[in-house]
Formats: sequence, structure tokens, C-alpha cells
Amino acid sequence: MMKDADIENAVNALDSLEIEIPSWGFSDTGTRFGKYLQDAAAIDLNDKLSDAGQVNRYAGNCPLVAVHVLWDFDAATRPDEVARKAMENGVRIGSINPNLFQDQCYKYGSFGNPDPEVRQHALNHVLDSIELGKGVGSRVVTLWFADGTNYPGQDSIRERKHRFEEGLKAAHEKLAPDQILLVEYKPFEPAFYQTDIADWGMSYVLSRKAGPQARVLVDTGHHYLSQNIEQIVAFLLDEGMLGGFHFNDRRYADDDLTLGSIDPYQTFRIFSEILGYQYDTGTTPDIAYMIDQSHNLKPKVQAMIQTVLTAQELFAKAALVDRDALKKAQKQTNEIDAEEILRRAFFTDVTPALRVWRDKRKLPGDPLQAYRESGYEAEAARERSQRRKELGLTSGGSYA
Amino acid sequence: MMKDADIENAVNALDSLEIEIPSWGFSDTGTRFGKYLQDAAAIDLNDKLSDAGQVNRYAGNCPLVAVHVLWDFDAATRPDEVARKAMENGVRIGSINPNLFQDQCYKYGSFGNPDPEVRQHALNHVLDSIELGKGVGSRVVTLWFADGTNYPGQDSIRERKHRFEEGLKAAHEKLAPDQILLVEYKPFEPAFYQTDIADWGMSYVLSRKAGPQARVLVDTGHHYLSQNIEQIVAFLLDEGMLGGFHFNDRRYADDDLTLGSIDPYQTFRIFSEILGYQYDTGTTPDIAYMIDQSHNLKPKVQAMIQTVLTAQELFAKAALVDRDALKKAQKQTNEIDAEEILRRAFFTDVTPALRVWRDKRKLPGDPLQAYRESGYEAEAARERSQRRKELGLTSGGSYA
Amino acid sequence: MMKDADIENAVNALDSLEIEIPSWGFSDTGTRFGKYLQDAAAIDLNDKLSDAGQVNRYAGNCPLVAVHVLWDFDAATRPDEVARKAMENGVRIGSINPNLFQDQCYKYGSFGNPDPEVRQHALNHVLDSIELGKGVGSRVVTLWFADGTNYPGQDSIRERKHRFEEGLKAAHEKLAPDQILLVEYKPFEPAFYQTDIADWGMSYVLSRKAGPQARVLVDTGHHYLSQNIEQIVAFLLDEGMLGGFHFNDRRYADDDLTLGSIDPYQTFRIFSEILGYQYDTGTTPDIAYMIDQSHNLKPKVQAMIQTVLTAQELFAKAALVDRDALKKAQKQTNEIDAEEILRRAFFTDVTPALRVWRDKRKLPGDPLQAYRESGYEAEAARERSQRRKELGLTSGGSYA
Amino acid sequence: MMKDADIENAVNALDSLEIEIPSWGFSDTGTRFGKYLQDAAAIDLNDKLSDAGQVNRYAGNCPLVAVHVLWDFDAATRPDEVARKAMENGVRIGSINPNLFQDQCYKYGSFGNPDPEVRQHALNHVLDSIELGKGVGSRVVTLWFADGTNYPGQDSIRERKHRFEEGLKAAHEKLAPDQILLVEYKPFEPAFYQTDIADWGMSYVLSRKAGPQARVLVDTGHHYLSQNIEQIVAFLLDEGMLGGFHFNDRRYADDDLTLGSIDPYQTFRIFSEILGYQYDTGTTPDIAYMIDQSHNLKPKVQAMIQTVLTAQELFAKAALVDRDALKKAQKQTNEIDAEEILRRAFFTDVTPALRVWRDKRKLPGDPLQAYRESGYEAEAARERSQRRKELGLTSGGSYA
Repeated sequence: MMKDADIENAVNALDSLEIEIPSWGFSDTGTRFGKYLQDAAAIDLNDKLSDAGQVNRYAGNCPLVAVHVLWDFDAATRPDEVARKAMENGVRIGSINPNLFQDQCYKYGSFGNPDPEVRQHALNHVLDSIELGKGVGSRVVTLWFADGTNYPGQDSIRERKHRFEEGLKAAHEKLAPDQILLVEYKPFEPAFYQTDIADWGMSYVLSRKAGPQARVLVDTGHHYLSQNIEQIVAFLLDEGMLGGFHFNDRRYADDDLTLGSIDPYQTFRIFSEILGYQYDTGTTPDIAYMIDQSHNLKPKVQAMIQTVLTAQELFAKAALVDRDALKKAQKQTNEIDAEEILRRAFFTDVTPALRVWRDKRKLPGDPLQAYRESGYEAEAARERSQRRKELGLTSGGSYA
Repeated sequence: MMKDADIENAVNALDSLEIEIPSWGFSDTGTRFGKYLQDAAAIDLNDKLSDAGQVNRYAGNCPLVAVHVLWDFDAATRPDEVARKAMENGVRIGSINPNLFQDQCYKYGSFGNPDPEVRQHALNHVLDSIELGKGVGSRVVTLWFADGTNYPGQDSIRERKHRFEEGLKAAHEKLAPDQILLVEYKPFEPAFYQTDIADWGMSYVLSRKAGPQARVLVDTGHHYLSQNIEQIVAFLLDEGMLGGFHFNDRRYADDDLTLGSIDPYQTFRIFSEILGYQYDTGTTPDIAYMIDQSHNLKPKVQAMIQTVLTAQELFAKAALVDRDALKKAQKQTNEIDAEEILRRAFFTDVTPALRVWRDKRKLPGDPLQAYRESGYEAEAARERSQRRKELGLTSGGSYA
Repeated sequence: MMKDADIENAVNALDSLEIEIPSWGFSDTGTRFGKYLQDAAAIDLNDKLSDAGQVNRYAGNCPLVAVHVLWDFDAATRPDEVARKAMENGVRIGSINPNLFQDQCYKYGSFGNPDPEVRQHALNHVLDSIELGKGVGSRVVTLWFADGTNYPGQDSIRERKHRFEEGLKAAHEKLAPDQILLVEYKPFEPAFYQTDIADWGMSYVLSRKAGPQARVLVDTGHHYLSQNIEQIVAFLLDEGMLGGFHFNDRRYADDDLTLGSIDPYQTFRIFSEILGYQYDTGTTPDIAYMIDQSHNLKPKVQAMIQTVLTAQELFAKAALVDRDALKKAQKQTNEIDAEEILRRAFFTDVTPALRVWRDKRKLPGDPLQAYRESGYEAEAARERSQRRKELGLTSGGSYA
Repeated sequence: MMKDADIENAVNALDSLEIEIPSWGFSDTGTRFGKYLQDAAAIDLNDKLSDAGQVNRYAGNCPLVAVHVLWDFDAATRPDEVARKAMENGVRIGSINPNLFQDQCYKYGSFGNPDPEVRQHALNHVLDSIELGKGVGSRVVTLWFADGTNYPGQDSIRERKHRFEEGLKAAHEKLAPDQILLVEYKPFEPAFYQTDIADWGMSYVLSRKAGPQARVLVDTGHHYLSQNIEQIVAFLLDEGMLGGFHFNDRRYADDDLTLGSIDPYQTFRIFSEILGYQYDTGTTPDIAYMIDQSHNLKPKVQAMIQTVLTAQELFAKAALVDRDALKKAQKQTNEIDAEEILRRAFFTDVTPALRVWRDKRKLPGDPLQAYRESGYEAEAARERSQRRKELGLTSGGSYA
């Protein structure tokens, strides 16, 4: 049973957590083998903002929507108009995600492309995205590069690195003083021999060179098997270089499964490192907590609500770690007690704290059930099917 | 320098090697993030047979073309007509590959689907494919299942197994006496929590239950990291259960890279286990040597020629392993000599043997160069671009 | 909060769980880089039985002790005497584990050794162990083989397989009708190129050939990274071929960490597959639940108590899975609900059920604390240090 | 067939390659499951220097011997005496390797230990090693830390990082101007939850903070599965932060197998990145090429000769990469040709170049055979067995 002090700790932690939802999580997605379509999948940015609004309405604390330039914006889109539409749905625009892989010109890379014209094209797109961020009042620009090579010898690893140094520096120069540039790493896919920013170390070095507003973005699915993610998180926090997360879970590769669905204890440990850092330093690190998942089969809004609820639950648990007792056990090299202190928090039933927090925020006690009962999904399926027919579309956009 | 006896061994080995080319290797393919299109990519089965004919014409010993039902065939396609067209291109139809993942009904699986109607639909498609095989004079039916689940609890693992036992048995019953059924395994993708036939052991058990004409298919990219593939090959050979290969290379997951491009020594060791088995038993195992690659960026016909040349080179090297010396070193537990015997064969320059074999077969000395100089690719690019425009197509079909 | 029916389910499940403790878990162990010694580490079998008795006394339901022939027995040891000593400590002898790697003659393997004399030596040791099992009234003989090769070519994979088929068959012939032979698999270590029984498939095929009393042993640390262990468990259960477990946890390789310390949800899912099988078939499978851990740093008896408590907690949680609701959700392909049913059970606070069960068994409410307060560890440290000095020993035996 | 220019390139490359042999490679080593002993295994530093001298005498270009403080030195050892003994055997002392894991005090780490006294003890040992390096005229001090934790929560990851920053800085301060400090990384073993310097990124950051004479050491066996090592090498070269290698090969974990025995193409690609860097920059990077292998079963001197010969062969092959043609193919994004340029070099039979180089150095044409015929091994086995008996030893020292 939770004690009152625990409930307070958990509620405070939840109050400090703001989660960002990806617009692309509401479109039809799939694997290279195809997509299974959903009637209620979003067709355009309006749909996505509406869906995101639903998630925030029922789950709470996820008022930000990450947008993907190209999928969500075109030249004709007026940023202030988008910002207004987001507000109407009770959300606001979060990180801006340039798309540096969809154009056919990116066949051999974007910032790393041997062709200087393609590199300039890519840079221009990033600069446009930075401007867009200023336009919609978003602070975060997130760079994920599909760049890399498929075969040994295909390109010079060192020259590609130099091109990245140059491109990132050029992008950084155009940031507004309050903007930050997040640089994501990924060991493979879609490049299969090497990716230009393969691990946190490469992202760290390149970010440092780009300038003081660049930070490392940790996508929890972008690691080697068995890699200790929470250690990387702790290391980057200590270096002041952790800029944000793309949360998801996975079993094998970058599977983009629901957060905590495969290894909830790992998610908990990541949260625990962050809250431990806050406890020790007395400062709340400036971290963008973003979701990056592709629910190929699950109903999309439901899956996103499930994700946010899971994040809330595991974050609340992490807030229960008895920091002083843990420090004491560590000092005594009492491994068993130290471990049990973590596990005790992890296995605590935090329902009471979630209930208090939801009441305070006037959120439904069972957000998933409340959403299901709202009729939104059936209505979206009906209206979007109809609209898709009128537009002559077979699926709802986005990748694959 | 190769001795005459070595050249003879290598040439004999090459004479015994017949490689099957996948029709889908000539279409535009990509990853879930998109496709980079090629003008010369094949549009329809005619194009694919033509492209495969080119590969066989220049590289030799790859007269078989694996076909993918749905992508290559529809109800209106007459099997004998296809067989005739293949012949015109100097090739013939190899394995028949049913497609059990593209229809929307397969969202939750095919043979493993909880819905009996979908299972029947899948079975019917397999039975049609078996008939098609009879019609085109093909002996091999290859089953790859995208079946599995994405989340713990999503379905009963044991019930799915029972459904597979039932479906495979039903398919096996309809085989002609000379047909064989190959059952492929894959640990993940597109299913991310579990796949129903995850490893060779599951394929082995299910094949045994299906009936005496079922065998295990080894796709070299469908293994856990660090798994010893040549041991599985040796084990299955010894059990009489190795039916065939899907060859490719990879670094991380099922990357479908060119054979031998990442770890050529592993490919060599696989070939060496097969030739060692032949040497010991005096019998040539009935193995379908199939290629299964997706050259997302490389020019497709060139990449396929490169693949076949690589297979020839590594197979010729494997034929040079001094089997008697190896046995002697093994008996003496002389690890160093045993190892060096393998490496000596691997690092032997087999150009002389390849030259002899190509002369004998009236193949060009540099098949890749000869193909490049033929003008086929430029002409295909021109004609297919034009045709694509006329058909209103944006890309050349196939997955992703 | 647990409902009464849940408490009853959990208590019944706990009543059906009997855990076996490894005698070698009480000795000083380490890595290839050395051992950190503990004063209280066991010196001989008496110490180990005493330590195991402590674990059972405080944690309950672990009355069996796995013994390792060579480390625990010599020719002079009288089996009935050992059985008696075990009884005095409130435990009994569980599985018999022959040692087939410690003798210098096993340099190139035991059952797989190219030298027939070594193979005979190994077989004799297994036959002695089978007799020993009969002598101490133990039903289970567990075979783990360190056999394999370090380099490609070192030995014939197929010939080694044949030798294993022969050896296992010969061992099986000497089993008493009620004895079972468990065959363990492991992908690597101490052999680094291939191990002769590398995965569950090889263990399955070899066990089937050995005879009807052979079964597969699943060591949770003996898998490739990302392999789905609970699927293997479900598959083997369905085949009637799951003989037992060696439980532990790991992050990278065969790390032999405390059960559930790294990925408790995975352990829960394994338990859930077993209890689901029981629910569906109405039969309790005959599974030996054995622990195989090396607590290199943790105090050994405490670590073993922690392990048993963890097993109890996770097993109780697995008993709470609402099987009917799960089946219903699966039938409806309602992924989210199916998943949440598992997670709800996993995150239920089962303290009330554990309290009821401990009261019923007259076990302390906080077994670890009760053990710590008993003074046993300090006394063992004192007495064993003294004895070690008298015997001229530097460490407590066992491996590394 | 090699052209004259190729032979010259290869010979020049070989002339620039100097390999360092580990003294501990001549002792009996094993796994945590035990050691298989060899009569000819070295007992003390004299034996090791003698063995290393043999390797250099037959294989050439490996005149340096890495030494392990504690195993090779004690307080009474006079550095100048050791340097003299090395000279007598035709070798000289290479890198100094402090031992920071063998003392019982290191149970919870060395530089990362929570106890400041242990940290000081470890630092003192490193400072002694730095002095020893000065004494024997060795330039390189190599730091490998077994530090880490086994369980979540066991210690504060960030505090351990701070302790490492402090310790490395303190060590760096005592370096002579020409000494360099190499900082090794390793993802796991013997620590199983996290190691304090888990990857190249952590080593890079900590080295940068330690001071300008600190560099990253790449042990080829210390990576996650599927990690691209040659990319890390290229990245570090470009950053001026690659200090040296510990070469070996592996299949699963840190298996310490013979270089190039499992994946020779990977070793070749690493060499190719280094030689490509030299070609592009016109500078030869200051890299310590060290071997770190444990030949648990192979005869140790033979295995080391085999290793050096393999390094020579693969380095010579890497020197044959046609750099200009490669650049041209890369510029044209001609993947196939770029790849084939690498493979052509890899598969070139470099025997002619090795013959020329060996003749020039007055080395035997078949170094392994020449060593075998020398009678050294039999004599060492005889004499060392006898000496071992006299000293009352059962094995030859070193780890496990």
C-alpha cells in the first residue's frame, strides 16, 4: 500500500512529466512487407491533431505533438494556422522533424551524400524546418538521418563524417537562441553496413562540434542488443548532453513497439536515472520526452493512450525509489538491499497515486475505457473511410 | 597457384551447382522508410524472366527463377504460357512462393490466424500454388510465413502451433509425389514479439509432422546474431532434413544484402559443410540453392550477376578443402592445421578454375563487364520508363 | 488489491511449486578473471547441505538440492549417508549433475571427443551418476556438456553429433524406469566456435533419439540475445519434451545473475506459459524447477533466499492471469486488452497472498530479514574461515 | 597474380607494421570452468620473454612484449634487468598493463570503487606502473578496468563516472612527456549489469578529460554483436584519438580467439581503414598494434606465430586496395565496383609479397613449420614440467 508521502512524490513527479506524441503515430504504418490498413487512421494533419487531442484529453499530460515535415507540412501550410488548429484540439506543436530520406535524391544520403547539391538540398530543408519551428512556436528541432552505406567500400566513412560536421554546424548557426537541435543516433536500418551516426558517442561528438545548442537524442529502440540504455542516459545527463528521448520498446531491432510492453523494468530504470539525477543535483534536466512508435496493428489512438498511461505508471513508480536508503545501501556495498529498493518501487501498485493525480486533473479514472466509450473511433473510421474514398486514397500516408 | 587437380575439383563442383534467382529481386524494393526507384526495375513477370535470363546468360548456372504468387501470377495467368516464356529467356520456373501476408485478411496471421476462415483462405492459396507448381513443372513449393504476434498475450502460442500443424499437414497431402515442401523459419520481422516458426528447430518439428516430403529451408539472414549457421546446415544434412537455402548476407537483422558481402568466410564454411557431407557420404544432397536478396540501391541485374559470381567463387574455394588432410588433422586434434586447411582453400585464388569453367560453358571471362557492355540495362531503363508512364505506374511493384 | 479468489489462486500455485537449489551456489565462484572470496562460502557438501537447509527453512518450498558429482562426491562417499545428511538439514538430494569438463582428458570434449577412450570415460562417469541417483533416491540426472570446438575445422560437426547420439543412447539404457535424463543446451562458452548441443532444437532431436525418458532442459541464460524463451517453453510443453529449468537472469551472455534481477517480466511470462498450459490441459507438467546461479559477489545464502522469494513472487503473479478473459481477448484479436491482462497480473502486489502462504507454512513474514537476524552467516564465516585455515585451503572449491 | 607494384606496396606496408605480443598469452589460461594445462606453458616472465622471442624470431615484426604487472613483476623485480632479459631474447618491453582486478580489495571496483582507500590503492598501482614504464623504456601504459556492477542499483553510475574522471586525471598527471595512456572499453565481463567504461564513447569522453596524452584502446572483442568496428576505428582516427588495438577474434562475447579465425574480412577492413587514412592524410598514425588472445587449447607459441602470420597476410592484402580506383567508384556512387575493389584486394594471394618480405628479413619461408621443427616446444615442455614439479606448481599462472 502506498503511504501518503509516496502518493505525494508520485503526483509531483507526474506533474513534472510532459509527453510529446508523434503525429505519424496516427497514420497507417507497416513494415517493408506491407501495411494493414485501419479505417480510423489519420489522413492529414488535421486528423492527427484531432487524434492527438483525444489522447491528451483522456490520458492527460501529453499536450505536445511532434510533426514531420513533408508528411504534415507543405510549402502552402501557414505555420500560425497550424499552431491555431493544434490549440483548437487542446494541444500544441512540439518538435519539428525534417524528413531527410523520402526524396529520391537521398538515395545515397542527405548530410552525408557525396553530392554537394544533395547536401545543400538537405541543409535547406533543415533550415526551413528551423524556420518552421520559429513559426509555430516550437523549441525543438529533431534530426534523424537515414544516412549510411549498405556495403563495405561504398563511401568513405571519414569523408561522410566531415560532411556531417559541416552540415550540423551550418544548421546550428541558424537556430534561434531558445531553440535546441537534437541529434539522433541509430545503429542500422535503413542503412545496413554502417550508419553515419551509429551510436551515442558519434552523436555526442558531432553535437559538441555543431555548437552549444545541440544535444543527443536517445531513441530507446536504437541500440545494440544487450546495451545498457540507462547507463547512457546517466552518462549523458552528467555531461549535460541529454536532449530528449524517442520512447518505444523492442525485442530485436527498432521494432517500435509500445513503451514498456517487452521490458517494463528497463523503462523504469531509465526514469529512475533521471529522477535520481534530479534528486542529487536539485535541477530538473531539460529533456523532451517524445514517443516514437508505429502501431501497425493496434488501433492507433487507443495504443497511444495505452503508451501514455504506461509512461505515467512507470514514472510514478520511479518516483518511489527511496533515494536515501539507496545511497546508504550503495555506500555499504549492500547489493541485495540496493537492488530490492529499486524492485520494491517497481512493484508498488501506484493506482492510488494515479487516481489522485487524475482526479486533480479532472481526467477519467480509466482513460482507455472512457475513450472507447466516447464513440470517437467509430466516427473517425466512418468519416475517414468516406473521405478516403472521395480523395481516391487507399491508405493514410506516412511511411512504408 | 592452383594445381590441375584443384582446378578439376573446382570445375566439377561448379558443374554440380545450380542457383535459383528470385523474380522479386528485379523489382523496386526498399525498407519501411521508402523505396528508391530505378528506371530499369522490372514491371511484370515478363521483365523479370528477361532479367533473369540476362543473369543466366552472363553468369551461367542459374537457370531457375523463383516466382512469387500474387506478385507474378494472377488467376488469368496460364502456367504453361509462363513456362514457355521462361524457356524463351533461357530459364525455367523454379520454386513457387505463395504470398501469405499481403492480403489485408492476414493482419493476424495466415496458417496461425485465430479465424478459421482466414486459415482456409491461406490454405487454399497454398493448394493453388501447389497446383501451379505442377502446372509449370516446378518441384519446390516454398513456404514463408509472416505469422506471429507483436505483444505478449496477443495470442496463444500453443494454439497457433496446433493451427500450423494442421495447415502444413493439409498442404502436404496435396503434394505430387515428386514435389517437396520447404518450410522457412525466421526469428522476427514483420512479427516482433514471436514468430510462429522462429528457428530451425520449430521448422524441423513442424516439417516432420507435416509429412515425408517436407524439409527445412535455411535463409542465411534469418538467424539470431552470433548463431552458427554452418552447424545448423551440418545438423540438418545429417538428419536428411535440409531442403534448401535462401542465400543473402547481413550485418544486423534480415538485411538481404549481397551474398558474401559482409562475411564471405561464413558462406564458404556453409558450402564446405555441404561438400564435406558429399565427400563423406558419397551422395549429393537434394538442396535448392536459392538467392533471396533485395538490392534496394544497386542496379538489380548487375547485383544479381555479382551474387552468382560470388557464389561460384566461394563454392569453388570450398571444393578445394583438402578433405583427407582435414580428417587427419581432426583425428590428431591438431586445431591449427585443421583451421589452416580451411583458410588455405578460402584464400586460394580460384580465377584459373573459374576461367576454365567459363570457357567450357562458353561464358564471358568477365560476366559483369560483358553484361554492362551489352546495353541491356540502358535499353530496359528506357523502355520500362516509357511503359511505366503509359501504365500510370510510379514504381515497379513488389513489397514495401 | 488482491481479491480472495486471487489469493487462493496464488496460494495454490505456490503450493505446487518446488524449487531445487544448486549445491555449487554456496561455494566461492568467479569469472575467468578470478574469484572474490567469502568467509562464509561452503567448503564441502556438508556445508552446502547446511546452507541449502537454511534457504529452505526461511524461504520454504525449496527442499531439493542439486549436487555436482566430482565437486560434491568422490568414490568414498556413501550415497545413503549423503541422503541422511540432507534429511538432517531438512532437505533432500535433487538432480545429479555429472561433471564432464573438469578432467584434463576432456580438453577436446567428453561425449563428443574424437578419442573413444575419453568418450568411454565420460560415459562411465554418467553411468556412475545414474547409479548414484538411484542410491540417493534422486529421480533426475542432468547433463550439461561443455563440448564443442573453438575454431572452424577443428572437428567434424557431424561426427561429433553421431558420438553424442551414441553416448546419450547408452546412458539412457541404464536409467531406472522412474529416472529421467535432462539434456541441456547452450550456444557458447566454454566452446567458442560451436557447441555440440547449441540450442533447444539440437537437444530435442538428440533427446528423442536417446529414448523416452530423455527431456530438454532449459537454462534461461543459454540463449541467443533476443530469443523468445517463453515460446520455446510453450513449444516444448506442447511436445511433452520440457524436462526442467535452470533459472537465472542475464544481460549479455550466461551471466548467471539472480532470477528476475534484469528482466522480471520475462520470468513472469515463462511462468505464465506453464500455468496457462496447466489451465488448458488440466495436467501439471513434470518440470524440475532448478536454480543455476553464481553469486560471485553477493552473500551466497542471502542471494539464494532472494532468488527463491523472487520466484515465489513472480509465480504468484503468473497465477493471477485471468485465463478466461485472456482467451476472450485473444479470440477477438484485441491485442491491447490481452496485453493488459498479462500486465495487470504482473503488476499486482501479491504481498497478501505471500503472507497467507507463509503463515500457512509457518514461515517468517520477511524470510531474508529473519535469516539475517539468525546469526547463521556470521557463525558460518567464523567456523569456515577457521576450518579453511586448518585445511590449508585458500578458497571454497567449485569452478573458476 | 600480384604485380610488382603490388608486391612493393605490400612489402612497404609490412615494413611499417610492428606487432606487440602479450606475455600472458604464453601462460595456461582457461574459462571460468577451468583450465586445460600445457606442459610447455610459461611459468615466469623469463619463460614468457623466451617464448615471445621465438615468435619474433620466426614470424618477424613482433619485437614488443606487453607485460602484466602483478603476473610478471613484483616489488623485487628490477626494471633494467627485465629490459636486459628482453633484449637477450631479441625483444623489448612494450606496453605496461596494471592489474586492477586481482586483489580481493577490488571486489567492488578499482577506480570506480565506492571506498576511497581502494581507489587510492588502485591509483598507486597505476602510478607504479607508469614509473615501471619509464624504467623499462616503454612508452605505453594500457588501462583495462574490470569495474562495473552486477545488479541495477548496486552503485551510482554517475558517481562511478566521477571517480573515474578523477582517477584518470591523477594518473595522466604523472606521465612522462613521451608516455601515452590507453583507456580500454568493454561492454561486459566480469561485470554483468554495467561496466564503467562500456563503449568507445565513454572511453573517448574520459580520455579527453584525463588529458592530451590519453587515447582510446580498441579491443576487437569488446563490442556489441553486429557493431561496426572499422567505423569506430575510422571515427577515432579522424578525431586523433585512436591509441591502439587489442587484436583477437570472437563469435559471441570476448572469446579471445585467434585474429581472423572467425571473420577475416572484418580484420582486413579494419586494416584497410588505417591504410586508407594514411593514404589520405600522408601521415602514419601512432597506433600500438597489440595482440590480446587466450589460446586455451592451442599450443601457445604456435598459436601466436599463427596470429602474427595472419596479421601480416591481412595487412598485406589491405595494402593492395586500389585507393584511387576506390575513390573514383565512391564518387560515382558505384557501389558494386567499390565493393569489388575491396574484395579483390582481400582475395589476392599475397604469398609472393610475403616471400619477398621474409627473404629481405631473413625469415623462414614457412615460419610455423620452421618453429615446429626447431625442437623448442618439446624442450620447453620437458624443462618446464620438471621445473613446475620442483616448484610444486600445478599450473602456469595467469588468470582463471
